Amino acid sequence: MRYKLTVEYDGTDFVGWQRQSNGPSVQATIEDALTEMHGGLATIIRGAGRTDAGVHALGQVAHFEGAGNIPLHGYQRGLNAVLPRSIAIVGAELVADDFDARFSARGKLYRYSIWTAPTRAPMRDRYVWHLRREIDVARMQEAANHLVGRHDFCAFRASDCERKTTTRTVTRLAVARSSDLVTIEVEADAFLKNMVRILVGTLCECGWGKRTPADVQQVLAGGDRRRAGITAPPQGLALVRVDY
Amino acid sequence: MRYKLTVEYDGTDFVGWQRQSNGPSVQATIEDALTEMHGGLATIIRGAGRTDAGVHALGQVAHFEGAGNIPLHGYQRGLNAVLPRSIAIVGAELVADDFDARFSARGKLYRYSIWTAPTRAPMRDRYVWHLRREIDVARMQEAANHLVGRHDFCAFRASDCERKTTTRTVTRLAVARSSDLVTIEVEADAFLKNMVRILVGTLCECGWGKRTPADVQQVLAGGDRRRAGITAPPQGLALVRVDY
Repeated sequence: MRYKLTVEYDGTDFVGWQRQSNGPSVQATIEDALTEMHGGLATIIRGAGRTDAGVHALGQVAHFEGAGNIPLHGYQRGLNAVLPRSIAIVGAELVADDFDARFSARGKLYRYSIWTAPTRAPMRDRYVWHLRREIDVARMQEAANHLVGRHDFCAFRASDCERKTTTRTVTRLAVARSSDLVTIEVEADAFLKNMVRILVGTLCECGWGKRTPADVQQVLAGGDRRRAGITAPPQGLALVRVDY
Repeated sequence: MRYKLTVEYDGTDFVGWQRQSNGPSVQATIEDALTEMHGGLATIIRGAGRTDAGVHALGQVAHFEGAGNIPLHGYQRGLNAVLPRSIAIVGAELVADDFDARFSARGKLYRYSIWTAPTRAPMRDRYVWHLRREIDVARMQEAANHLVGRHDFCAFRASDCERKTTTRTVTRLAVARSSDLVTIEVEADAFLKNMVRILVGTLCECGWGKRTPADVQQVLAGGDRRRAGITAPPQGLALVRVDY
């Protein structure tokens, strides 16, 4: 039987979602706990997306196969009892056999948080990019509006991104300020490697005056990663939700 | 010359505000940095209040004496450059020679945060008490209203609290819910040891039905710590502001 897990995590101390040899990953931590619950039967989970080292999630989704002898709340409570406090299973559901956390996803919402006060904020520091510059949120939103829609986001992906197609549909890209905290929410059907972090870096360069909104539109049209902005650091990013 | 610092910190990894021999304290960390800035001249800072191990602050206040040869922004930037990311100096001011961070304080605001969802929230976990019970916020507010005003808070202090007078004036005690997050804000002229955490524990026992609001009033009148509720854990507590 196939199960869907919704997972929240603080990515600070992980090498990322994906199992890797160089340190603890969220995927491996959950797989090891599931394997233990399955009496040693190696269990693989497949996530909706691979978050980078240091990136967080409020609603990552993963699926796995189980024998059907453990109830849903047994999975949720059992996993939460053994997982570190930095990971929590916030939902468990039975799904159809053809459900795939990655390929069944219709879209995702990411949120990027920027702390704009002159000094860092220790109680937020794990979850924000501390940017010591004034940024103009209205100007960032104007640039963001050029990116909404179906476009080739080739200029906004990591140089080692291996996706064959680079056209994605951004359905929402909203920049908002609440006192010293600026948040950028991005919804799209799918994302390229580092796409949100490069979008954020580019929008911020626009916000502090290094670029114009028209320039951001030209970067998109040009398709050249080298013309886009910096890659914003991972800790400001959280995968909020996956839609199916 | 006398300086006033406003300090934010994530208390998770500290033994508390006060310098102690059993581990790193916020006070000692700042004092060591100031001593270094003062060319090795031992510098003592005095805080407005001693937060317990694991308790946070958005606006702790401390004062110290300096020779007057370092500008205010030099203190702020210099300290922030060497302090760990878990501590930040968010303000520095010159004050009169008779300013005392502790004795000049007219009041303080503390905020206690409670996470009431069935599963823990990894991205909030360092800053909340995860209470796996339904709590009735209206009932807690009704109990809280009995505690507002000038009262003897003898029942709401740690058994090893050494204060001679136990009468305090609580000017505001507000319980609020925002989806799964319940916050309790307490303003008073001064606080006894563990007073906020015992108030919170007692209000929560009221919220989950173990006590009535009238019972909380009787606990206050009785003055017996053993009749009050549990001491809520430290990580949900933050010193928000000190008023002068």
